[in-house]
Amino acid sequence: MSTQDIRPGELAVDLPPPADAGLVFVGRIHTPWATRAAAPKQGSADGPVCRIEIFPPFVPALTGLAAFAALDVIYWLHLSRRDLVLQSPKGAAAPRGTFALRSPVRPNPLGLSRVQLVAVEPPFVLVRGLDCVDGTMLIDLKPERCHQSK
Amino acid sequence: MSTQDIRPGELAVDLPPPADAGLVFVGRIHTPWATRAAAPKQGSADGPVCRIEIFPPFVPALTGLAAFAALDVIYWLHLSRRDLVLQSPKGAAAPRGTFALRSPVRPNPLGLSRVQLVAVEPPFVLVRGLDCVDGTMLIDLKPERCHQSK
Repeated sequence: MSTQDIRPGELAVDLPPPADAGLVFVGRIHTPWATRAAAPKQGSADGPVCRIEIFPPFVPALTGLAAFAALDVIYWLHLSRRDLVLQSPKGAAAPRGTFALRSPVRPNPLGLSRVQLVAVEPPFVLVRGLDCVDGTMLIDLKPERCHQSK
Repeated sequence: MSTQDIRPGELAVDLPPPADAGLVFVGRIHTPWATRAAAPKQGSADGPVCRIEIFPPFVPALTGLAAFAALDVIYWLHLSRRDLVLQSPKGAAAPRGTFALRSPVRPNPLGLSRVQLVAVEPPFVLVRGLDCVDGTMLIDLKPERCHQSK
């Protein structure tokens, strides 16, 4: 599961088995980035259009989505180790706690992006502002509360 | 698991087993609201201070969190059914898709709130802006990207 070694100052803990609750993948995210190294550190509103594919049983859940300008997207960062509570990001002066970072390495590797809605073309949702690798599995999609609907 | 009957226009699907990924509860949220009926529909920046308790192995992950003004909080909505893809909220003209609603009823019942940080007093984090019931289990905590640190 680990994709990197521990750096000086980092702290790994014995993670309890991740069996408190279970997730179902509701879709798959298609982006231009094949690897984490190729993906941007952070999504941008003028980034490329990415396609979120919704799996069949959940397609009706897109009804009405086109009315919104911005969405929260939650996805599963399957490449990330989960046991680091202190991390030393490159260039940081001192190790920081995982909850004080948006690093993909976290006890529950959930990615969260606010994106701009481009179009809803079931089973696809087209958005700008993602930064995840191609093939990332989708967990949830919600209208952003702070934005008015179009 | 169901806490409500189906209303006219709503659509339930056979949910695949939620076994694609597993979560670990990293803490517990203490709020003034014992039931969903008592909780506000939406958190407010001038709402009461709520206490997020971090479980022991994860407390070091709070290091550096005090520098941020606003956080994203992700939590587990254990009272919610998961199988509705169309929902008829009270007062809505027509059923809406689950992904076009912030309803707690969703395939992966993850709640997401942007909150104002009041204080970090390990193992507690004090915040304003939550709307969940007392005892809700914490999944993740991240600094909000759009806000500068204090």
